[in-house]
Amino acid sequence: MHTPPLASRLGAEAIGTFWLVLGGCGSAVFAALFLNSEGTQMGIGFLGVALAFGLSVLTGIYAFGHISGGHFNPAVTIGLAMGRRFEWKDVVPYILVQVVGGLIAGAVIYFVASGKTGFEAAGNMAANGFGDNSPGGYTLMTAAVIEIVLTAIFLYVILGSTDGRAPKGFAGISIGLTLTLIHLISIPVTNTSVNPARSTAVAFFNGDGAPGQLWLFWLAPIIGALIAGATYRFISAEPRPDISGEVRD
Amino acid sequence: MHTPPLASRLGAEAIGTFWLVLGGCGSAVFAALFLNSEGTQMGIGFLGVALAFGLSVLTGIYAFGHISGGHFNPAVTIGLAMGRRFEWKDVVPYILVQVVGGLIAGAVIYFVASGKTGFEAAGNMAANGFGDNSPGGYTLMTAAVIEIVLTAIFLYVILGSTDGRAPKGFAGISIGLTLTLIHLISIPVTNTSVNPARSTAVAFFNGDGAPGQLWLFWLAPIIGALIAGATYRFISAEPRPDISGEVRD
Amino acid sequence: MHTPPLASRLGAEAIGTFWLVLGGCGSAVFAALFLNSEGTQMGIGFLGVALAFGLSVLTGIYAFGHISGGHFNPAVTIGLAMGRRFEWKDVVPYILVQVVGGLIAGAVIYFVASGKTGFEAAGNMAANGFGDNSPGGYTLMTAAVIEIVLTAIFLYVILGSTDGRAPKGFAGISIGLTLTLIHLISIPVTNTSVNPARSTAVAFFNGDGAPGQLWLFWLAPIIGALIAGATYRFISAEPRPDISGEVRD
Amino acid sequence: MHTPPLASRLGAEAIGTFWLVLGGCGSAVFAALFLNSEGTQMGIGFLGVALAFGLSVLTGIYAFGHISGGHFNPAVTIGLAMGRRFEWKDVVPYILVQVVGGLIAGAVIYFVASGKTGFEAAGNMAANGFGDNSPGGYTLMTAAVIEIVLTAIFLYVILGSTDGRAPKGFAGISIGLTLTLIHLISIPVTNTSVNPARSTAVAFFNGDGAPGQLWLFWLAPIIGALIAGATYRFISAEPRPDISGEVRD
Repeated sequence: MHTPPLASRLGAEAIGTFWLVLGGCGSAVFAALFLNSEGTQMGIGFLGVALAFGLSVLTGIYAFGHISGGHFNPAVTIGLAMGRRFEWKDVVPYILVQVVGGLIAGAVIYFVASGKTGFEAAGNMAANGFGDNSPGGYTLMTAAVIEIVLTAIFLYVILGSTDGRAPKGFAGISIGLTLTLIHLISIPVTNTSVNPARSTAVAFFNGDGAPGQLWLFWLAPIIGALIAGATYRFISAEPRPDISGEVRD
Repeated sequence: MHTPPLASRLGAEAIGTFWLVLGGCGSAVFAALFLNSEGTQMGIGFLGVALAFGLSVLTGIYAFGHISGGHFNPAVTIGLAMGRRFEWKDVVPYILVQVVGGLIAGAVIYFVASGKTGFEAAGNMAANGFGDNSPGGYTLMTAAVIEIVLTAIFLYVILGSTDGRAPKGFAGISIGLTLTLIHLISIPVTNTSVNPARSTAVAFFNGDGAPGQLWLFWLAPIIGALIAGATYRFISAEPRPDISGEVRD
Repeated sequence: MHTPPLASRLGAEAIGTFWLVLGGCGSAVFAALFLNSEGTQMGIGFLGVALAFGLSVLTGIYAFGHISGGHFNPAVTIGLAMGRRFEWKDVVPYILVQVVGGLIAGAVIYFVASGKTGFEAAGNMAANGFGDNSPGGYTLMTAAVIEIVLTAIFLYVILGSTDGRAPKGFAGISIGLTLTLIHLISIPVTNTSVNPARSTAVAFFNGDGAPGQLWLFWLAPIIGALIAGATYRFISAEPRPDISGEVRD
Repeated sequence: MHTPPLASRLGAEAIGTFWLVLGGCGSAVFAALFLNSEGTQMGIGFLGVALAFGLSVLTGIYAFGHISGGHFNPAVTIGLAMGRRFEWKDVVPYILVQVVGGLIAGAVIYFVASGKTGFEAAGNMAANGFGDNSPGGYTLMTAAVIEIVLTAIFLYVILGSTDGRAPKGFAGISIGLTLTLIHLISIPVTNTSVNPARSTAVAFFNGDGAPGQLWLFWLAPIIGALIAGATYRFISAEPRPDISGEVRD
């Protein structure tokens, strides 16, 4: 299949990462907690936020996967290159537009949130963190372990679901719902990154310690992705690596 | 594939929009809040309502998409025409039956809700709004921005998922779950429209300021849809526009 | 495709209806409300019950649909016969085994529930009802309307999703999630039937007025199903009715 | 299709079972209950845990099913062998790596949980149990019945969804969501096993009576699986048993 021009692929990655951050972080900021006038929780909670992150990727893959491969995540792009499914020469431009798309979504969330009386951005922009900035107060070490492990599994699922032997067309469902499951596990630990672009998109709007911890949410997901990318083909007995721009479905 | 007669297509759009409003607004009116006798929340909350809107479209597309294309939304119909996937001459009849189907659903919700002792329709019919009528008190300007942005992304997903290069058959899942995600993000902001027929369907039964704000929920979704429809083919490097009555799978 | 012998088809309908009642009513009885020791709601609420009913049918169709067609519901069987997708001569045996399979599930729920200290079956077996037996106190008339309307839409989705023009293989997803949406709307109204076998399965174990109201949950779903079965082919401009034992996917 | 080497298949089963336990038990330990500073429940509850278990299997099947068949569960492996879909000679190695993969996940959960101040493992590692160790205090007898019945249905769905007559590619969705439904029903009864590897993975980290009750969560699931494996082909009128290493999709 003919690979679309790089400009189109970068546009698709930017819009897709915008959608991931707007959907995942936006739902967390606007809707995770919503008390009615009697104090009953009507909001979507961590379960709704987990669903939102996953659906942003599921829908983004069906919408844009045929253009750019549907990464929306620097760790995914690096892991796919490591796994010989994506060309190293396109890694840097992909990551750049992912970060830009994510930051624009962060700005939109910030603007819309400001339309509610009394909204305070500091600490309320769905940033990732550990220690005092972890929702449940988890340590740096446990935050690092969970981010590495979950990103590695994420890449295994991506590499496996887009393997030539897997059923065709279902990769978007499988990959998106894996991101939902990753969030179901780890929102209390780090607020869940596994995606450096998502972490960067809101860290500076959030402030409150998040920018100073951002390094971990680049380092840990990339380590996890490299491990999975390097090992998948030995585990899977994959018949032949498939290098192309269209890595999904 | 042979296009069904216009009467069948209009019937399918009317029933599908009826289903969207009955499912989405009906679940919000009947089931979002339900306290048991000890005051525990048993209701479905914003998460359940978001799921309901999405599932109404997901199921409507598989049930009726092969007849009418499965729009159920004037903004979708206009955006598809702008994107050269739907003929402009059929736009007005489609919109008319969508509004009529939605209004009939509004009447059914109103009637059923009246079967519960003490139900007050005013302000409780799941209308869209901004300012004092926004669930979270969001301003007109932020309401307009979120509706434009979310409708634009909705159309990108629709155009992308029904692109000839996307996996066949999955568009209903992708499009329906995008509507779920849109609601996960924005119920607190505007109660989520992105669909002028849905807003119109309940505004007059709701009263309480909703009819006077209805203009925004025609204007903003249509602006978002036109932007996406006009730009998708440049972003996607789409090989050839595909004009037909059956825009989805 | 070769139709399996009637004995296999009846076995599949019995197991599938058993699964529908165990999954839907069982989750409602055991798990809808569960307070931890501090009184926090951990249970699945109406949203979880709605998901359970839908997933029982979704999974039942993929597991047993190729054997029996995957009805698991007398109203569906009758509606499909009306819509010329199922032979009238098999309607009575199908309904009989559906009722038997459902009743066995009701007995299993009753037995397991009895394993919890202090469980009172009366009024707590997820029966359907109106008036004093409606979760939200809705009247007979509004209960009848919602059951007729929702069953009619259910049949439209079934007939549409299994139409030869719909994407292949997705009918189980579409039909199952329609049942979820039906429950998201109407648990507060009637506890949601749209299925006389499901209503019968728990009415007598529940007691408390449910047996005396059971007639409505046979009458209303069947009326809705007959309306949809009789009208679908005019709305859909269906090219040719497809009569066979395997009505789904 | 060519069967991958046994080492790859065992690696895939180990990673998949690791993922099942990390996803299902991890989400239960970290995220089922999470109160914000005002005491509002933000956690995912039993509904989120049920979704997590199901999604771990759904995604594991799309990622690894083409390598190992995607069992991740000793009862599934035994039931498939009984149903002539899997070779008896590979049953023991499959079960061994499933248990090892699960135990490693248990250790990761234990380590990460220890990163939160004040975490007490005893009784809080999502172990299965009956009597005093059942979340709702259900007896041994009712625990046994529900585990046998639900595992039998699980195997029927697995055997049915991977039957040559079922739609291709959807088995991962059907099987995963069946596990979700099983949890929606029975978390209050036994905390839901239907999987001896999952029970073993956390029993010893949990302590508090769980190791002494582990026998039931080997015995009951295996009985249920054997019943279903032995009877499926009579119920289904299956044309021909299909023995291969790739039992799903």
